[in-house]
Amino acid sequence: MLHKLFPKDVNFFDLFEKQSNCAIEAAKYFSVLALKGTITEEDVRKMHDIEHDGDDHAHKIMDELNKTFITPFDREDIHRLAKEIDDIIDMLYTITNRIRIYKISGSNKTLVEFAAVIEKSTQAVSCAVRALRNIKNIKTIQDSCVEINSLENVGDDMRDKALGDLFEHEKDPVEVIKWKEIFQDSETVLDICEDVAHVVSNILVKQA
Amino acid sequence: MLHKLFPKDVNFFDLFEKQSNCAIEAAKYFSVLALKGTITEEDVRKMHDIEHDGDDHAHKIMDELNKTFITPFDREDIHRLAKEIDDIIDMLYTITNRIRIYKISGSNKTLVEFAAVIEKSTQAVSCAVRALRNIKNIKTIQDSCVEINSLENVGDDMRDKALGDLFEHEKDPVEVIKWKEIFQDSETVLDICEDVAHVVSNILVKQA
Amino acid sequence: MLHKLFPKDVNFFDLFEKQSNCAIEAAKYFSVLALKGTITEEDVRKMHDIEHDGDDHAHKIMDELNKTFITPFDREDIHRLAKEIDDIIDMLYTITNRIRIYKISGSNKTLVEFAAVIEKSTQAVSCAVRALRNIKNIKTIQDSCVEINSLENVGDDMRDKALGDLFEHEKDPVEVIKWKEIFQDSETVLDICEDVAHVVSNILVKQA
Repeated sequence: MLHKLFPKDVNFFDLFEKQSNCAIEAAKYFSVLALKGTITEEDVRKMHDIEHDGDDHAHKIMDELNKTFITPFDREDIHRLAKEIDDIIDMLYTITNRIRIYKISGSNKTLVEFAAVIEKSTQAVSCAVRALRNIKNIKTIQDSCVEINSLENVGDDMRDKALGDLFEHEKDPVEVIKWKEIFQDSETVLDICEDVAHVVSNILVKQA
Repeated sequence: MLHKLFPKDVNFFDLFEKQSNCAIEAAKYFSVLALKGTITEEDVRKMHDIEHDGDDHAHKIMDELNKTFITPFDREDIHRLAKEIDDIIDMLYTITNRIRIYKISGSNKTLVEFAAVIEKSTQAVSCAVRALRNIKNIKTIQDSCVEINSLENVGDDMRDKALGDLFEHEKDPVEVIKWKEIFQDSETVLDICEDVAHVVSNILVKQA
Repeated sequence: MLHKLFPKDVNFFDLFEKQSNCAIEAAKYFSVLALKGTITEEDVRKMHDIEHDGDDHAHKIMDELNKTFITPFDREDIHRLAKEIDDIIDMLYTITNRIRIYKISGSNKTLVEFAAVIEKSTQAVSCAVRALRNIKNIKTIQDSCVEINSLENVGDDMRDKALGDLFEHEKDPVEVIKWKEIFQDSETVLDICEDVAHVVSNILVKQA
C-alpha cells in the first residue's frame, strides 16, 4: 500500500466545502419545490443531479482518505463527516421523489416552513465545516453547532404539531399515511444535520 | 492534545452506572404512564427531564473518553456502550411524546405488558453494566446478557401478536397507523437493549 | 489477551463464503414464498432456521476476529462485512414474518419480481465475497459490485412504481399500510446488499 506522506495536492477542507455547498443547494431547491407544491419528473431529475454531485465529492473524500497517510483530523471523523453530509442530501432527494410518487400536490404551509428551517440548518452545517480549516475559528464552529442543535429542536416541535394536526383534522387515512412520512422525513433531515454537529464538536474536543 | 495518563479522578464505571440507572428510571416511568393510559404535557416534560439527565451522563463519558489515554476497555466499546444506553432512554421519550401527540388515551393491555418487559430489560442492562467493573463478575454479566436476549425474543412475539390483532380487529385505519408505530417502537427499545448486550459480550470476549 | 499470531486454522474467507451462501439460500426461499403467496408458520420457521445458520457464521467470524491478531484485511471491514451480510438475511426473515403476521395472501406480481432481483443481488454479493480471497480477482469483484449497485437502482424504480400504483389503486387504507411496508422492506434488502458492495470496494481500494 502506497501512502502519500505529504499530500500537498489533497485538500480535505476544499472537498468538504464543496460537499456542504451541495447540501445547501439541495435545501434551497427543496424550498423552491415546497413552495411550488407540485413536483414533476424534471424536478426530481434536477434534485437527483445535485445528489449526484454530492456523491462525487463524498467519493473523492473517501478515495483520498484511503490513499492519504496524514489527515487533518481523525480518519474515522473524516469518514463520518462525509457520510453524514451525504445523508442530508440523500434524504432531501428521497423526500422530493416521495412527494412525486405519492402524487401530492398543492403547497403545504408546514412543509414550506420545514424547508426554510432545513435551509438554515444546512447553511450552519456549511459554516461549521468551512470553519474547521482553522482551530482559531473555534467560536464560529461552536456557534454553528449550537444553531444546528436549536434548529433540530424547532423541527421536533414542527413535526409534533404537524402530526397532531394531521391525526386530528385529516379524514382520509391514505393522506395521513403520505403526510406522516413526509413530515417525519423532513425532521430526519434536521436530525442528520445534528449528527454532523456532533461529529464537528467531537473533532473540536480532540484538537483542543 | 493533553492526555491524562493516570486518570484516577475519572471513573467510567460510575458514569455508566448513573447512565444505566437513568434507563431504569425512564422504563419505570414509562410503566406508570402505560398503566395510567393518558399522557399529559407534564408527563412528557418529566420523561424529558430523565432523558436530559441521561444525556448529561453520556456527554460526560464522551468528554472523558476524549481526554483520557488509558481506558478500562476499548475506546470504541466505551463510545458504543454510552451511545446505545442513551438510545434506550431517547426511544422511551420518543414513544411517550408520540402517545401524547397522537392523542391516544385509555390504558392498553399490550402496552402495559411491553412496559413491564422493557423495565426488566433495563434492569438487566444496568446489572450487566455494573458488573463490568470486575472481570470476576463474568457469570453475572453473561446471565444478564442471556436475559436481555431472551426478553428481546419475548418482545418480538408480543409485537407480532399485537400487530396481528390490530390488523384483524381494529377497523379505524388511523388507529392502526398510530398503534402499529407505538408497538414497533416499544419492540425497538428491546432491540436497543440487545445491542447493549452485544457490546458488553464483546468487551467480555476481549478481556478473556 | 492471547492472540494467535499465525492463525492457520482460521479462514475468514471460508466463513464469509458460508455466510453469503446463507444469504443466497434465504433469497431463494423468499422467491419460493413470494410465488406461493401465502406464508404459513412452518414457512416462517424454515426461514428462521436459515437466519439462525447465518447468525452462527456471523458469530464465528466475530469470535475469530476477537482472537486473531493478523487478519487478511482491516478488522473494522471484517466486522462491517459480517454485520451487513447478517442484515440481509435478517431483513428477509423480517419480511417473511411480516407477511404472515399481516395475513397477506395471494401471490403479488411485484413482490415476485422483487424476490428475483434480491436473489440476483445476493448471488452477486456471494460472488464478490468469494473473489476477495485473491487480489487477482479484482475484475470479478468490481463487476459484482457494479451489478449490486445496478440492481439497487432497479429496486428503487420497482418500489417507486409499486408505491405509486398502491396509492392510486388500492382503496383499502389498511392494505396500503401493509403493502407499503412490504415493498419498502424489499427495497431495503437491496440497499443492504449495496452496503456490502461499499465495504468490499473499500477493502479493494486499501489493497490496491
